Amino acid sequence: MEPKILTDTAGILKNIPRTGWLQRGIPPSVAETVAEHSFEVASILAVIAMQAEGRLDKEKMLIMGTIHDWGEAVAGDIPRSLTNRLGKEAKSRAERRIMRELSTVSGFRILSELFEEYEGRKSDEAIVAKIADVLSTLRQAEAYSARGYNVGDILEGCKRELTALIETLKNKDLRKVVTGLM
Amino acid sequence: MEPKILTDTAGILKNIPRTGWLQRGIPPSVAETVAEHSFEVASILAVIAMQAEGRLDKEKMLIMGTIHDWGEAVAGDIPRSLTNRLGKEAKSRAERRIMRELSTVSGFRILSELFEEYEGRKSDEAIVAKIADVLSTLRQAEAYSARGYNVGDILEGCKRELTALIETLKNKDLRKVVTGLM
Amino acid sequence: MEPKILTDTAGILKNIPRTGWLQRGIPPSVAETVAEHSFEVASILAVIAMQAEGRLDKEKMLIMGTIHDWGEAVAGDIPRSLTNRLGKEAKSRAERRIMRELSTVSGFRILSELFEEYEGRKSDEAIVAKIADVLSTLRQAEAYSARGYNVGDILEGCKRELTALIETLKNKDLRKVVTGLM
Amino acid sequence: MEPKILTDTAGILKNIPRTGWLQRGIPPSVAETVAEHSFEVASILAVIAMQAEGRLDKEKMLIMGTIHDWGEAVAGDIPRSLTNRLGKEAKSRAERRIMRELSTVSGFRILSELFEEYEGRKSDEAIVAKIADVLSTLRQAEAYSARGYNVGDILEGCKRELTALIETLKNKDLRKVVTGLM
Amino acid sequence: MEPKILTDTAGILKNIPRTGWLQRGIPPSVAETVAEHSFEVASILAVIAMQAEGRLDKEKMLIMGTIHDWGEAVAGDIPRSLTNRLGKEAKSRAERRIMRELSTVSGFRILSELFEEYEGRKSDEAIVAKIADVLSTLRQAEAYSARGYNVGDILEGCKRELTALIETLKNKDLRKVVTGLM
Amino acid sequence: MEPKILTDTAGILKNIPRTGWLQRGIPPSVAETVAEHSFEVASILAVIAMQAEGRLDKEKMLIMGTIHDWGEAVAGDIPRSLTNRLGKEAKSRAERRIMRELSTVSGFRILSELFEEYEGRKSDEAIVAKIADVLSTLRQAEAYSARGYNVGDILEGCKRELTALIETLKNKDLRKVVTGLM
Repeated sequence: MEPKILTDTAGILKNIPRTGWLQRGIPPSVAETVAEHSFEVASILAVIAMQAEGRLDKEKMLIMGTIHDWGEAVAGDIPRSLTNRLGKEAKSRAERRIMRELSTVSGFRILSELFEEYEGRKSDEAIVAKIADVLSTLRQAEAYSARGYNVGDILEGCKRELTALIETLKNKDLRKVVTGLM
Repeated sequence: MEPKILTDTAGILKNIPRTGWLQRGIPPSVAETVAEHSFEVASILAVIAMQAEGRLDKEKMLIMGTIHDWGEAVAGDIPRSLTNRLGKEAKSRAERRIMRELSTVSGFRILSELFEEYEGRKSDEAIVAKIADVLSTLRQAEAYSARGYNVGDILEGCKRELTALIETLKNKDLRKVVTGLM
Repeated sequence: MEPKILTDTAGILKNIPRTGWLQRGIPPSVAETVAEHSFEVASILAVIAMQAEGRLDKEKMLIMGTIHDWGEAVAGDIPRSLTNRLGKEAKSRAERRIMRELSTVSGFRILSELFEEYEGRKSDEAIVAKIADVLSTLRQAEAYSARGYNVGDILEGCKRELTALIETLKNKDLRKVVTGLM
Repeated sequence: MEPKILTDTAGILKNIPRTGWLQRGIPPSVAETVAEHSFEVASILAVIAMQAEGRLDKEKMLIMGTIHDWGEAVAGDIPRSLTNRLGKEAKSRAERRIMRELSTVSGFRILSELFEEYEGRKSDEAIVAKIADVLSTLRQAEAYSARGYNVGDILEGCKRELTALIETLKNKDLRKVVTGLM
Repeated sequence: MEPKILTDTAGILKNIPRTGWLQRGIPPSVAETVAEHSFEVASILAVIAMQAEGRLDKEKMLIMGTIHDWGEAVAGDIPRSLTNRLGKEAKSRAERRIMRELSTVSGFRILSELFEEYEGRKSDEAIVAKIADVLSTLRQAEAYSARGYNVGDILEGCKRELTALIETLKNKDLRKVVTGLM
Repeated sequence: MEPKILTDTAGILKNIPRTGWLQRGIPPSVAETVAEHSFEVASILAVIAMQAEGRLDKEKMLIMGTIHDWGEAVAGDIPRSLTNRLGKEAKSRAERRIMRELSTVSGFRILSELFEEYEGRKSDEAIVAKIADVLSTLRQAEAYSARGYNVGDILEGCKRELTALIETLKNKDLRKVVTGLM
């Protein structure tokens, strides 16, 4: 096992601003980093974990929230404008390939499995982790909007995506917990 | 329950650079934020969780790593130079009071309980969360040192603290996992 | 005498952003540093000194304005949100202790005496130095407010504090000079 | 013709730091932007144009240097670590597709033609523009290296690429001019 | 010939924020650098070159756009507020002197000649290069204005200057091309 | 009297990085601002004032230290590389003219008088204020040098200037106080 490969990879994200903000005029010295965003995702999931009851595998959900952007240390933060051109499929394929590679060189097979589950929205845990991802983005977009940055398309996109994601949650109690965070 | 109070509090940490770096000359535009640090802590704990077997309550450990600095949104990042003067007791008292307050206004009693356990190093989970905190600081200090910043006292302090913390771990397997990250 | 201890201490403030701004969303790369703030305080006091006539000890007033935040090099910039919880007394006690310590190690007894006078608002010079401190904060808050940052509570707090401080000035001419700066 | 689409696109690059620097620890507030890099490329080409004699189409060469990274406004700055995984082909295909799209919506057919020529190194003008691109990166890497950043792989990569590129230049005089800039 | 003197000089501009923005409150970590501005100027000129037909010496125009601010590496970015006091003549004299000096030490006589032509608006190429300079400034001013910065005087000044410059263009087709960019 | 003109002018300096640092590669987001520098100058002078005995007019000295760079709010920070070309005389003339203008529009005649005394090194107070200016620059240069920035020429220039300035001090006790700060 080479756990340091993973922590070094995560460490790089402390230095990567999110491309979507940069493209909309938020200066690099100001824009949220991927690490800051991922911390907010983890915080939202911690709040959900402290509240939710029942059959949720909280450990899995918390880990998915923390690792979901590790691949960006290798790929950079691929913006939606590129994803739209490559196709969502190609982007997902590239990120899954990177995570498999990280799995192999570090010896953590579980890493790639968790990412596949997350990326495929294959469980309520994966869906909630994705909801936290979108919710964190939405909040940051609201803050930038108040300062005069033109991030309207991200705001709208996040709202639509949240509505769609919540509908796919099977666990009704979980839906309520998540809705309480909006 | 007012979960938004907690996520708003966590969100502030995306904007708070760690005071220890600032005091040693790392510019505010460059210094790691508390959120970036906490993300690294969470990442280290995720790596440990994916590796460790047996009786560890991983969910608890992961949440402790994520919340351990939320109080700094209210208190600012109190530097060691102030702690040394107020006494470790006074600092810990202030932070625990803030977390109790956050618990009360948000209605999440568990938040304060987890922080008490963390702050008191009352379990292996708490000790490992603290180890991740110190390890993340050590790595950042090494990076700053390579760029000509004088952070030698922090480097030394972290190394001493790590050695001491590892010795207090009861679970032998866990010691091995943690040592593998150094 | 070890004057370099003092100038090194002051030098650290060139790198410490004011915590109150950070908590309200002003990014670390953008937020005013304590040194920048203290320069504005010194500038306001220089303008007052060039204008005021009569019994004012201007040298003392100018020095108080320059040194009033040196303790933050050791303590960090303790935000109002922490002061409110520790009590104003505890904060003042910590800062006075730090200044006494700086006095002792540098051999400048006068430093601690001046800070005590300032902190206790024990003379018109001390009150005017505090007014300059609050006025500088008010102006910066107005600038941040115009850019969409939510600093309304600081704006209001500064205005109230200024009114209260001006009323405690004994020297009527000085009141007029100070009011002319609003 | 919709020329504003092109100038708006170029304007975004003033805000995009180069991903390769970020991955190697240069903070977002410090890292060179794509616009700064492209300006250096244009400056190197202007120096070559002022020197070179004979059959070179300098206008074409200067335009290629200025436009060569416009696609990154849409794609972000795709780092070598991702290119290595997607294949150089896939990256080039994505960028050429974006430039074709920009050509179509703006009505500037020449834009895509010039980019194809540049990307395919199909002429001495294209090769010199690429040399300027690599030379600018090399110089910035040397500057970062002197400040303690670990950019050795980029330094080596640039040197190898420069040697290879110069060898493909048909015009012997041009080779001499270019070599004079090393 | 010492071409490296010129490319080193240009390289400095990657680090010089434009003084006019700083004076109006845009923070140094946020303000556009001279290199970023010059890249936008070069991009506008590339768009014009790709469109314009007929007698324009595009190579000359593109070089003028790239070199027009090189002197600021030596002089700093002299703000309008200083120019107004020294007289436009004195500023122009200083900048022309610096460019002559750069010409002499590098051995590129053409550099100073091109700058004289640009500074004297002695040809349509020079006028268009200046138009691109002002247009780039206008667009950046509009962006800062939307974020709450008070740059109204620059906005107005740029609009007036653009109108005046366009009227001095002799080539009618060129006027139309330029107007299409507003 | 229009004291606000003066405090507004001083406030601008919180946003102006020193050009000399920028030219030597210190990034705008990192470089010391004129306000930070002036605060250090004021702090050095406060330390001297708390120590020095006898005939020194400390009030005058402290005000000179605070106001000595106010003109840069209008002129920008004119770098030595430009001063060398314009002649020291021309630079001094421009700055004195700006300070006279500030004096006139604000109604503070004393401001211009103090600046003339400072700029002409006409008294021990003026010389000590200048010494503090150079000493602050020297210390910052030492800090940048340790981080890999090439500021050797500034380091050497400051050392030479300090030696020369100290020799012009008439007051022997003052010489000793000043030497104690090196």
